[in-house]
Amino acid sequence: MSAALSCGTIHGVGLGPGAPDLLSVRSDRLVRGARHVAYFRKAGRPGQARRIVEGMLRPDVIEIPMEYPVTTEIPLSDPRYNDCLSAFYAECTQRLVMLAQAGEDVVVLCEGDPFFYGSFMHLHTRLAGTVPVAVVPGITGMAGAWNATGIPITWGDDVLTIAMATLPEDELVRRIRDTDALVVMKIGRNLPKLRRAVAAAGREDAAWLVEHAAMPGQRVTRLIEAETVTPYFSILLIHGQGRRP
Amino acid sequence: MSAALSCGTIHGVGLGPGAPDLLSVRSDRLVRGARHVAYFRKAGRPGQARRIVEGMLRPDVIEIPMEYPVTTEIPLSDPRYNDCLSAFYAECTQRLVMLAQAGEDVVVLCEGDPFFYGSFMHLHTRLAGTVPVAVVPGITGMAGAWNATGIPITWGDDVLTIAMATLPEDELVRRIRDTDALVVMKIGRNLPKLRRAVAAAGREDAAWLVEHAAMPGQRVTRLIEAETVTPYFSILLIHGQGRRP
Ligand SMILES: C[S@@+](CC[C@H](N)C(=O)[O-])C[C@H]1O[C@@H](n2cnc3c(N)ncnc32)[C@H](O)[C@@H]1O
Ligand SMILES: C[S@@+](CC[C@H](N)C(=O)[O-])C[C@H]1O[C@@H](n2cnc3c(N)ncnc32)[C@H](O)[C@@H]1O
Repeated sequence: MSAALSCGTIHGVGLGPGAPDLLSVRSDRLVRGARHVAYFRKAGRPGQARRIVEGMLRPDVIEIPMEYPVTTEIPLSDPRYNDCLSAFYAECTQRLVMLAQAGEDVVVLCEGDPFFYGSFMHLHTRLAGTVPVAVVPGITGMAGAWNATGIPITWGDDVLTIAMATLPEDELVRRIRDTDALVVMKIGRNLPKLRRAVAAAGREDAAWLVEHAAMPGQRVTRLIEAETVTPYFSILLIHGQGRRP
Repeated sequence: MSAALSCGTIHGVGLGPGAPDLLSVRSDRLVRGARHVAYFRKAGRPGQARRIVEGMLRPDVIEIPMEYPVTTEIPLSDPRYNDCLSAFYAECTQRLVMLAQAGEDVVVLCEGDPFFYGSFMHLHTRLAGTVPVAVVPGITGMAGAWNATGIPITWGDDVLTIAMATLPEDELVRRIRDTDALVVMKIGRNLPKLRRAVAAAGREDAAWLVEHAAMPGQRVTRLIEAETVTPYFSILLIHGQGRRP
């Protein structure tokens, strides 16, 4: 390596909820200009982040798909789940660091906002102190979801609680009872549990399910009219009813 | 009015937290192309939303500043506060509806995301059933704020609570005690109360204050090191510490 060679930067780039024109101008420029583009995906799947930028990449782009070794096969509670993922993130980090040390910039595609429950965060902590890192915020999936309902999410003094459907059922009930507005993410196979929790909290009539917000196949339904299965990209919303002059 | 004249659309356009290149590509196009651009501001002030798009507007743009009749002069609890604001929003709505009915599109500038504690929502409810309305989501101020700290806001199963500093002190204490990650907005003159609440909840060491996120003069400090006054555009954050393989 030449002594004059300067280190490249690893960019964690927020892509927004799904529509290509919901990338920020800054993210759009970085994505279109990038020689090296990395993204997570399930083995054998195109990957949601990659799908969003379809048609935007340079003809000579070098793609770096990072394929999850496990997703839902091993339960979260199994210690092997953690070990396996941890080794995977370390390996991905190593690969990106080597590119940056060779002077190359790398764009890592992040669905929504990179610092909001994002996979990129697991690279970001491991990158600390190695090579330059820059993060571009993005429109979150939940903003795409409340936009899709056409109803504002919060008013005045409303408290908004954001919770994951992976929480225990009684914890979900307690959270739903104790908030004005609600966002629940990571639903998927937790839908039946979430449904029971919303009903137990007496908020079934106010709840909306938004599937694939701002993506092809976007679907907005009241929870009471929703199907019994829902895709990974689903968000449950209860809109706040706060002060409005 | 000619019978063939079709109605214009009123666009509520999210601008993101402050940097001009954090507008979405869709918002950027709408703002640059707009003949009529409306925005809220305090009387005699340039207005934050207008400042963000400085240099982006068409040379022949027609600007429609909507000046708040009151902001902090009358206390929130005074019924005149509500009446006064309500009449103001009705008047603004009327003005935009007349333009749309005359066939003109109007872009309403919205700081952050329009449906997240935004002033535009007060026009949006009043516009229902009158003329076509379209809303473009935006990067929220809080996403700008956690991006500025360089630390992810939420991991794994973290619960994120979003609360306004206008809430009563004991309610703030309770909310801060009962969450993993925290965002507090609308701080301004409520800073001393918020500080006491964070201390009472035992989270002073974990709290950050971000002023003017992604705007000129951005400032990130630990709450314990922060000044005793803070501008309107300030956000308090406590980052979550959830599961991270
Ligand atoms: C690992 S989190 C990533 C969140 C992302 N960083 C963001 O800012 O929205 C994945 C969860 O986000 C939610 N999600 C993100 N984008 C979505 C979209 N466009 N439509 C529906 N759900 C979405 C789903 O609940 C999904 O389970
Ligand atoms: C009426 S709310 C508008 C929120 C906006 N719609 C959004 O999506 O962020 C105003 C509050 O938002 C917060 N805020 C919005 N943008 C900010 C920024 N860039 N920096 C700091 N605070 C901001 C402040 O707490 C302020 O009191």
